[in-house]
Amino acid sequence: MSTPIRFCFDFSSPYAYLGAAQVEKIAFRHGRAVEWRPILLGAVFKITGMRPGPDMPMRGDYMKRDAPRFARLLGLPFRWPSTFPVSGVAPSRAVYWTEAHAPEKTGALSRALLSGFFADDVDPSSEAGILRAARSVGLNGTDVLAGTQDPMVKDRLKAAVDEAIGQGVFGSPYTIVDGEGFWGADRLSQVEAWLDGKGR
Amino acid sequence: MSTPIRFCFDFSSPYAYLGAAQVEKIAFRHGRAVEWRPILLGAVFKITGMRPGPDMPMRGDYMKRDAPRFARLLGLPFRWPSTFPVSGVAPSRAVYWTEAHAPEKTGALSRALLSGFFADDVDPSSEAGILRAARSVGLNGTDVLAGTQDPMVKDRLKAAVDEAIGQGVFGSPYTIVDGEGFWGADRLSQVEAWLDGKGR
Repeated sequence: MSTPIRFCFDFSSPYAYLGAAQVEKIAFRHGRAVEWRPILLGAVFKITGMRPGPDMPMRGDYMKRDAPRFARLLGLPFRWPSTFPVSGVAPSRAVYWTEAHAPEKTGALSRALLSGFFADDVDPSSEAGILRAARSVGLNGTDVLAGTQDPMVKDRLKAAVDEAIGQGVFGSPYTIVDGEGFWGADRLSQVEAWLDGKGR
Repeated sequence: MSTPIRFCFDFSSPYAYLGAAQVEKIAFRHGRAVEWRPILLGAVFKITGMRPGPDMPMRGDYMKRDAPRFARLLGLPFRWPSTFPVSGVAPSRAVYWTEAHAPEKTGALSRALLSGFFADDVDPSSEAGILRAARSVGLNGTDVLAGTQDPMVKDRLKAAVDEAIGQGVFGSPYTIVDGEGFWGADRLSQVEAWLDGKGR
């Protein structure tokens, strides 16, 4: 059995949404599973000295054009959220609770939270946002919401952030295939090429 | 006649090399010319608060894997330069001198300077590097070198940097098609899609 593709992302990253829509298909075509790894980039930015793209002069304006354009090319709905950025803590914990209790729904929940945020303008850090996403994938929303306060889940997120930093993850999304890292929604075609044995 | 595709780049950007290798073909397929616009990103970084990628913790290490991998996927030779970064002033001026005196060779000289740097480890800011690149495209190397001290050429570079900042250019390469900006060597496939009427 091949190792899974690890998809690290921050919930306030529009490119996470654009990458999440591609990674599952790529993995499926190559007989791989996807490990969904929500992380908190704030901790990483302290190390790299980077700032969130949307906060940067010039680059922020660019992202507001680039992300919707990229979405159109992928055939995905996109709307810049009215509240942005948001804390990734609660939705990330919701994903790790699901990983522990209904692992087959981890990907669906991640994508529902991301598309809720970037297509439907639903804040994934809000209770309503988590309930909506959980229910849309057939999870018990109340359980998921309660799970975000579970000490084991809290520790799981912290450990995931530390592990990601240790693996060199500095942006979102960051896809790892057999130890090889690819930063950006625009690198998923290269992830696929890599799986096909190209670029090695 | 359609407007040219403007290709803004910094000579210390490996992604400029990777983009330069793609842009001419894309332009040709769509009946467009390319305007080669070397700029100095140092001035831009002061505005955005960004730093050159290779200087950043984590991201620098990533670039040293990503750029050669990207080059392999494009079928291009790549070697990380032994002296890096270098000042883009002299090679940029060489390009603007050429734009004024042998405009049909502006692209060839830009590509020769970039591939000299990122494939053959020849410093494009050195006299030897400029002579080598100029001669390889049939220019009089001594004239080009002298041209880098021409006050009009110096002003041309300054004006190009200011104009690029005014157009929102914050990274390298940055390609502008009919007013639409695309950042990165990885966006050139989207430049082509845009020229085909997609993503609008």
